[in-house]
Amino acid sequence: MFIKRKSIKQVEESTDFAPKFDKSGLISVITTHYKTGNVLMLGYMNRLALKKTVETGEAYYWSRSKKTLWHKGATSGYFQKIKEIRIDDDQDAIWLKVDTKASCHVGYKSCFYRSIPFKKKLKRIKMIFREKRKVFDPKKIYKNLTNTTKL
Amino acid sequence: MFIKRKSIKQVEESTDFAPKFDKSGLISVITTHYKTGNVLMLGYMNRLALKKTVETGEAYYWSRSKKTLWHKGATSGYFQKIKEIRIDDDQDAIWLKVDTKASCHVGYKSCFYRSIPFKKKLKRIKMIFREKRKVFDPKKIYKNLTNTTKL
Repeated sequence: MFIKRKSIKQVEESTDFAPKFDKSGLISVITTHYKTGNVLMLGYMNRLALKKTVETGEAYYWSRSKKTLWHKGATSGYFQKIKEIRIDDDQDAIWLKVDTKASCHVGYKSCFYRSIPFKKKLKRIKMIFREKRKVFDPKKIYKNLTNTTKL
Repeated sequence: MFIKRKSIKQVEESTDFAPKFDKSGLISVITTHYKTGNVLMLGYMNRLALKKTVETGEAYYWSRSKKTLWHKGATSGYFQKIKEIRIDDDQDAIWLKVDTKASCHVGYKSCFYRSIPFKKKLKRIKMIFREKRKVFDPKKIYKNLTNTTKL
């Protein structure tokens, strides 16, 4: 499915699908909601996850914390139906436009539910919540699963 | 400006701005156009770049290829005026909404100017150009500067 990377011209100016995976074998993935344009999450795919996403039309990622292929929604039921897949100039980043109801393990629609005030020199910036309510209760959905967020 | 990370609850559920920088001292940054919602680029910031972005309201990145602080637009004139800054649940990714005319060194508005057809089992996928024309001619803008894209 993936074409060998031969030249900068090929990678940037042609229609050859020649993605670049980093030293860990991963490519970065930005996922947005196809209607609202909101960024939902930033994830990672290995070769298999990208292949399965392209073939099935549903989003698969590589979970760096669990070190497994991750069919998004398999636990929560909130699958991501692909509407469009784009790739950037040097082909080391993917943009997925998806349809889904929620995508954040904390319970919000988007993982990016807080804003940072700017043009301010503050010692301690206080962020602002942009989503008023959670879409689901993570305790009910994930039950005894450990939160994989790392300090 | 940045608050010390103390607990998962603080990082995910509070208004404390406590970003996480990776082993290389960087945080991933998704940049979208504030009106169209199009993803323009995926970049990286170090602590100084994030500090300068928040303080000035213009986007600064860390250039991984040139290993320098990068005031986006300093060469091309296409600066990025910040409209909103968001951060994700575990605070290891930033989403910038910006106003700008072009952001891709190849000459397009967005770095993500090509689509990948999906739900197909093709040996060789041919991508589709989503931007018909370049906004600027990179040869005129960058003159003798080397293209830093890596194979």
